[in-house]
Amino acid sequence: MTKYRKELWFKTKTRRQFINITGQVEQCLAESGIKDGLCLVNAMHITASVFINDDEPGLHQDFEAWLEKLAPEKPYSQYKHNGSGDNADAHLKRSVMGREVVVAVTDGKFDFGPWEQIFYGEFDGKRKKRVLVKIIGE
Amino acid sequence: MTKYRKELWFKTKTRRQFINITGQVEQCLAESGIKDGLCLVNAMHITASVFINDDEPGLHQDFEAWLEKLAPEKPYSQYKHNGSGDNADAHLKRSVMGREVVVAVTDGKFDFGPWEQIFYGEFDGKRKKRVLVKIIGE
Amino acid sequence: MTKYRKELWFKTKTRRQFINITGQVEQCLAESGIKDGLCLVNAMHITASVFINDDEPGLHQDFEAWLEKLAPEKPYSQYKHNGSGDNADAHLKRSVMGREVVVAVTDGKFDFGPWEQIFYGEFDGKRKKRVLVKIIGE
Repeated sequence: MTKYRKELWFKTKTRRQFINITGQVEQCLAESGIKDGLCLVNAMHITASVFINDDEPGLHQDFEAWLEKLAPEKPYSQYKHNGSGDNADAHLKRSVMGREVVVAVTDGKFDFGPWEQIFYGEFDGKRKKRVLVKIIGE
Repeated sequence: MTKYRKELWFKTKTRRQFINITGQVEQCLAESGIKDGLCLVNAMHITASVFINDDEPGLHQDFEAWLEKLAPEKPYSQYKHNGSGDNADAHLKRSVMGREVVVAVTDGKFDFGPWEQIFYGEFDGKRKKRVLVKIIGE
Repeated sequence: MTKYRKELWFKTKTRRQFINITGQVEQCLAESGIKDGLCLVNAMHITASVFINDDEPGLHQDFEAWLEKLAPEKPYSQYKHNGSGDNADAHLKRSVMGREVVVAVTDGKFDFGPWEQIFYGEFDGKRKKRVLVKIIGE
């Protein structure tokens, strides 16, 4: 079994942002030399997500509006997290979008469907946060 | 390490449908010969899900009604995805239900609880779409 | 490849409860002797979740209130699951929070970010239910 591990760092300029990290994770796979196996990509922070969807700006606006409807940021007083905290909504939004994806590796490539792209979903940004890439296989 | 890969194809007659694919995925496991490991089952399309839940028609009606409440299909004008696109709701519904499941393989069988069944959740159907089954182990 | 499997049992006193199971899963990892690989932790029941988030009581109250808003327990008559059943909401809540987590194992430890803790999320409790821990690696 061969294994590979890398942390990717992100600091967004806005509180919420979606970043296409497919290229960076593909570079990890190339570095690993693994031809067949499973790749785990997960947010290391509990107010962020890693998810797979379409790289289309209109859809990302839809995600933003929809998540704000399901779990609004404000008023902060509606939430009990950390008393006077201001990021409870980020924990809820991340729960909808998910912490992690597991992607199959076949013939040295991610075994993706036609539109699958990996995104980092930031819901409480403007500070340095990490994504873990872990690959096992041979 | 032994590995196995197969694509399962589906074309639903309706826009939204839940299909129990447990038997097909169990056949993949039998073909693989793998006795112990992990099995990834994921939708290869970003408007569909693979999830584990109960095979009970009343519950599936509840899922349909609930997902329509959380992310209504119409009016299409409420969404920005692809300008005049009509399937933004399918991307949102799939985000709630999830892209993938990872199932443990023990003694040549899926290590399931009493009611666990694997479903393909289609949210934008009436065309051919794929599910990936990837198993690693020994 | 080394593999490890264990079931953890839970019986909550209330219908809904979040239990921090990080210590128990870390004990599984120690027992396994696995230094590098992947650990799957999944609810074996379809009205419960395993998820990763923060161990903060205020946040758990926020999760409870939020999930009740998204998928209210009552009135039971709003759901079709099992005709006169009373736990459809538990299936929906579990779908939001997820069935499973996959955690990287590196140097014999879970490769966690600073606040990541593993929780069992019970949505239809007061009876014995199980979580599966499956680890593969070397």
